[in-house]
Amino acid sequence: MNNFISVHDVTDINALVQKALAYKADPLKDKLLGANKRLGLLFLNPSLRTRLSTQVAAANLGMEAIVFNVDKEGWTLEFEEGAIMSGNTVEHIKDAAPILGSYFNVLCIRTFPSLKNREDDYSELFISQFIKYCGVPVISLESATLHPLQSLTDIITIQEVMAKEELKQKKAKPKIVLTWAPHVKPLPQCVANSFAQWINAWGEADFVITHPEDYELAEQFSKGATITHDQDEALKDADFVYVKNWSTYNDYGKIYENDPAWMLTEEKLKLTNQAKVMHCLPVRRNVELSDEVLDSASSVVTRQASNRVWAAQAVLSEILKAKQ
Amino acid sequence: MNNFISVHDVTDINALVQKALAYKADPLKDKLLGANKRLGLLFLNPSLRTRLSTQVAAANLGMEAIVFNVDKEGWTLEFEEGAIMSGNTVEHIKDAAPILGSYFNVLCIRTFPSLKNREDDYSELFISQFIKYCGVPVISLESATLHPLQSLTDIITIQEVMAKEELKQKKAKPKIVLTWAPHVKPLPQCVANSFAQWINAWGEADFVITHPEDYELAEQFSKGATITHDQDEALKDADFVYVKNWSTYNDYGKIYENDPAWMLTEEKLKLTNQAKVMHCLPVRRNVELSDEVLDSASSVVTRQASNRVWAAQAVLSEILKAKQ
Amino acid sequence: MNNFISVHDVTDINALVQKALAYKADPLKDKLLGANKRLGLLFLNPSLRTRLSTQVAAANLGMEAIVFNVDKEGWTLEFEEGAIMSGNTVEHIKDAAPILGSYFNVLCIRTFPSLKNREDDYSELFISQFIKYCGVPVISLESATLHPLQSLTDIITIQEVMAKEELKQKKAKPKIVLTWAPHVKPLPQCVANSFAQWINAWGEADFVITHPEDYELAEQFSKGATITHDQDEALKDADFVYVKNWSTYNDYGKIYENDPAWMLTEEKLKLTNQAKVMHCLPVRRNVELSDEVLDSASSVVTRQASNRVWAAQAVLSEILKAKQ
Repeated sequence: MNNFISVHDVTDINALVQKALAYKADPLKDKLLGANKRLGLLFLNPSLRTRLSTQVAAANLGMEAIVFNVDKEGWTLEFEEGAIMSGNTVEHIKDAAPILGSYFNVLCIRTFPSLKNREDDYSELFISQFIKYCGVPVISLESATLHPLQSLTDIITIQEVMAKEELKQKKAKPKIVLTWAPHVKPLPQCVANSFAQWINAWGEADFVITHPEDYELAEQFSKGATITHDQDEALKDADFVYVKNWSTYNDYGKIYENDPAWMLTEEKLKLTNQAKVMHCLPVRRNVELSDEVLDSASSVVTRQASNRVWAAQAVLSEILKAKQ
Repeated sequence: MNNFISVHDVTDINALVQKALAYKADPLKDKLLGANKRLGLLFLNPSLRTRLSTQVAAANLGMEAIVFNVDKEGWTLEFEEGAIMSGNTVEHIKDAAPILGSYFNVLCIRTFPSLKNREDDYSELFISQFIKYCGVPVISLESATLHPLQSLTDIITIQEVMAKEELKQKKAKPKIVLTWAPHVKPLPQCVANSFAQWINAWGEADFVITHPEDYELAEQFSKGATITHDQDEALKDADFVYVKNWSTYNDYGKIYENDPAWMLTEEKLKLTNQAKVMHCLPVRRNVELSDEVLDSASSVVTRQASNRVWAAQAVLSEILKAKQ
Repeated sequence: MNNFISVHDVTDINALVQKALAYKADPLKDKLLGANKRLGLLFLNPSLRTRLSTQVAAANLGMEAIVFNVDKEGWTLEFEEGAIMSGNTVEHIKDAAPILGSYFNVLCIRTFPSLKNREDDYSELFISQFIKYCGVPVISLESATLHPLQSLTDIITIQEVMAKEELKQKKAKPKIVLTWAPHVKPLPQCVANSFAQWINAWGEADFVITHPEDYELAEQFSKGATITHDQDEALKDADFVYVKNWSTYNDYGKIYENDPAWMLTEEKLKLTNQAKVMHCLPVRRNVELSDEVLDSASSVVTRQASNRVWAAQAVLSEILKAKQ
């Protein structure tokens, strides 16, 4: 693995999941793999789980992790080719990236979309420029359109549940539903895009996406899933329900409605096959998901978040081994 | 020791002090105790000594410390049970705490009071919710009402002075005075509460608290001390004078007066038994304490602050050993 | 070496350069030198290269580095002797410095000038007070008037270029030109002062400084260089061109003009002896330097920035060895 930006960087999803679960069983089994290697974690936006789980994963591999909050400890970067930098940007990515690449063996980057200009966000300018100029492997800690460490964690958690817990009815393929949920502000499409991309690529599920009209995701990610505006229909007989808000993709970055009827409740869960409920966190309680669901045995959100460590560790390990 | 939130978590204060002084004599004597253990330091408020001394203490025990500025690198947490999270809070403590507990072996937390609602502050909602949900030992780096690492440091310093320096007149018990001092803004009662709680629990001092009228501390902490509004009377023959400002407890969080006559000066020190002067720092020079006192041999404030390392190391060590 | 604040702390520049280049050839050759030693990095201002390269250098020496953003994670410090601290400053340097000195074996500090009061800035009050009170060696990560780690890096890079690349015409001494460049806001004189100080002290170059009228640097640093307002004249036959903006020194902290004709372009480079172009970064592209120059083989700015690690490592190593 040279970079980890999307599912396209993974040759065998199931093998990567097994690698992660092996680290969960024995976190320190490769504790010398990262010796004398340095990981730079660059944040242009806030982060809790992603930041800490990646630091823990690096430590488990004996790798030194150094965090740099670009937005707070550094300054604003310029991305436009040929820019006359007489405004607010202080340093061009062309100048910053190769230097960071000279200080670190692997770089991790988090950068959110503007949600103002779809073309800019979906071009993934920041992360692609970074890869182009830094000269070392890059791991996305969530980019403008995708969140691959989250999606890998999601599939790890799904497989773990399937292995450990007897689903009510054995099926050839689990039914996995990604459902839109209300929120109070416009959120990126990253988690939803990425989950769709990974579940489609994995191919071992009956995959349904449900959302209100006009909340269609980009086809490049959703294609392959059954898409419906009828949440009840979608939930029927589901084994996993992934709850997530996203803003509109077509008329970009908007909230059209926030119909509270889309919040996942205990009542709605009765439609499912005793589904496990997933969410990437942070979650707005009683807006996206009710307390009763989050505090019930149906919720696997804490397990999901703690699995972030093993996802990051598996990816770091693949990248370190590729560079040996 | 399972948590370290107040003096009630300590079974033998003198033994803990001796443990700290043993680390001071030989900082690296347990340098493998924390191997492959991780300490999370969570800050909801600024910190210099507490932050750095705890990082140093962890390093001395071979434990990896990871700092997370919740307020700056993360987002606002919700504490209210059943909250409909459609406002400014982004994540509920019920969701964040167990995940942090899954990433770390021990968690340290700093959180200041609001000074707006006494009942809320004195319920210690944040830290008690954190302990309830995180599932790993919690160390207070100063909470809404107490600052136990500071108080342990204070007793370490008092015992060190008593062992190393001949007090002018040998006494069965040293006279320790906690005196209110002027300040420019309303401060928490934490340090004063905590010092009172620890000195009372220690029981080996003649303990006097002095402050202007209406600055009474909560009885749950001050009970056992002699309380007087006459600073001169209090200082008479004192062996240790702890200088600290706090805002009002009864009419909560106010400054009633800032009578500069309460500032500790060289003149006032003459009333004492050549007392050593203590302060938790940061100190407003020439407001709380005069330059002449701080820059004299009477001041032990630097020794106090450097002892923070050994207090933190003793506590971490107790917690690590309890978990072995 | 006891401190590293200016070139005056260095007894043999060439030996220090060779030490740095030896670390570049074998970064881990002294990887136990800093074992059980702690480096505190204190930032009162933003930093990217300086921060990260120093952390990497410490790691290469097996030394634990702890970063503290004084401005963001701590509070405002007071420097005035005898101040009555009833304003915005929360802690006096006299109180903070010795405590930091008790937590760390070596302290690194970055602090920018105000650019408001020349006398204050040029007194280097902060860093000199810090050295006075902290009791451990201090390394400047850029102070009010100088940036010695940058200048050491600059000479390392110059010597590396001279050793590895055949200059067009062999000369007894390379011609090194420091040229002022336009910028959009008033910048400190630190990098220019420091470069001038080091090149003058090194003494192995034909050294020219060029800038518009009224941009004279302080004589204490520039003395020894040829100074001209004619940029073309200065560039003629140059082997190295160091491009840097600075604000006025005489009528302190101003921008008088921003004549874009002072921007270094490919056209102007033709006047030189195929000079290598240097800049400390961050650089405002197409304001200070044109894209065509920065993206050409003439630019050594990335090499310069990556050499920051070896400069910091050589200095840390000297300081650690002096304390052994």
